[in-house]
Amino acid sequence: MLVSELKKTIREIPDFPKPGVGYKDLTTLFRNPLAFVSAMDRMVDRYHGEKIDLVAGIDARGFSLASVLAYRLDLGLVLVRKAGKLPAAVEAESYQLEYGQATLEVHRDSVEPGQRVLVVDDLLATGGTAAAACRIFERLGAVVEGCGFLVELDYLNGRDQLPPDRVFSLIHFEE
Amino acid sequence: MLVSELKKTIREIPDFPKPGVGYKDLTTLFRNPLAFVSAMDRMVDRYHGEKIDLVAGIDARGFSLASVLAYRLDLGLVLVRKAGKLPAAVEAESYQLEYGQATLEVHRDSVEPGQRVLVVDDLLATGGTAAAACRIFERLGAVVEGCGFLVELDYLNGRDQLPPDRVFSLIHFEE
Repeated sequence: MLVSELKKTIREIPDFPKPGVGYKDLTTLFRNPLAFVSAMDRMVDRYHGEKIDLVAGIDARGFSLASVLAYRLDLGLVLVRKAGKLPAAVEAESYQLEYGQATLEVHRDSVEPGQRVLVVDDLLATGGTAAAACRIFERLGAVVEGCGFLVELDYLNGRDQLPPDRVFSLIHFEE
Repeated sequence: MLVSELKKTIREIPDFPKPGVGYKDLTTLFRNPLAFVSAMDRMVDRYHGEKIDLVAGIDARGFSLASVLAYRLDLGLVLVRKAGKLPAAVEAESYQLEYGQATLEVHRDSVEPGQRVLVVDDLLATGGTAAAACRIFERLGAVVEGCGFLVELDYLNGRDQLPPDRVFSLIHFEE
């Protein structure tokens, strides 16, 4: 499928989670076999041959993409989880949400210093979540080699929160 | 890797989440590239050629397995989410936890009547979560063709909550 066709499989839900916001519902892309496989193949192609040691998926929908990337690139998968989910010693990072804050956690022994990590999530919006994940890996001595997203909402400028030359998104919404 | 070797990559965390419980930490399997790819290949092999229309992953770690299965079997991926995460009309099902209860939701339009669904999660413990997911799909008119898990804790008898002849788990812990 063309990227323009992939984009059309994404459903927009008006006024979710609040009035005036058009929510990009990626579940309609996921449940479409042609779209899902084609989108994942393109993500894999983007990173095939790159020097990456581990793929990190962000809780929860990021796991769906990260696991296929890890599987196809013959790499391990690291889970970046919401607070309280991981059983061993964690490195944690809090970040601001529109209301309140959230915390992400990574097992401290899930990366070794110097390892190159690809951080993956389904959607890049304001960038706060992905930036927090990157800060955790950097604090653990790893190198964030790339940040990969299925969809980027360009108008929210989330890319500015991340190493700009290391961000890739397959599908872009300009407004 | 042999299944016995895969099993050894799973870390046991004593006294988590409470004293006396030995928590099976699958993140150590996920982050091991040989183990992760080998485990996923075996899951895919188990279902290759079966009559399945959709793969459903249970929030959140189930997404990691379900997405690789969907990708490799050329099927769409449906997300079974915790309450409040899905933006369109949902079918919901609550189930008992040790303390309190939890609710799973599936988009009503994510399956069509008669479609055959493979329900996937990382771990089968008491079976309450997977059983709730199955009830949602049955209520939506779909057929639960199988329930696939990476790990099953046999001593918790979760299999008894599910159609017994349709459960597959790659790795078993007897105690």
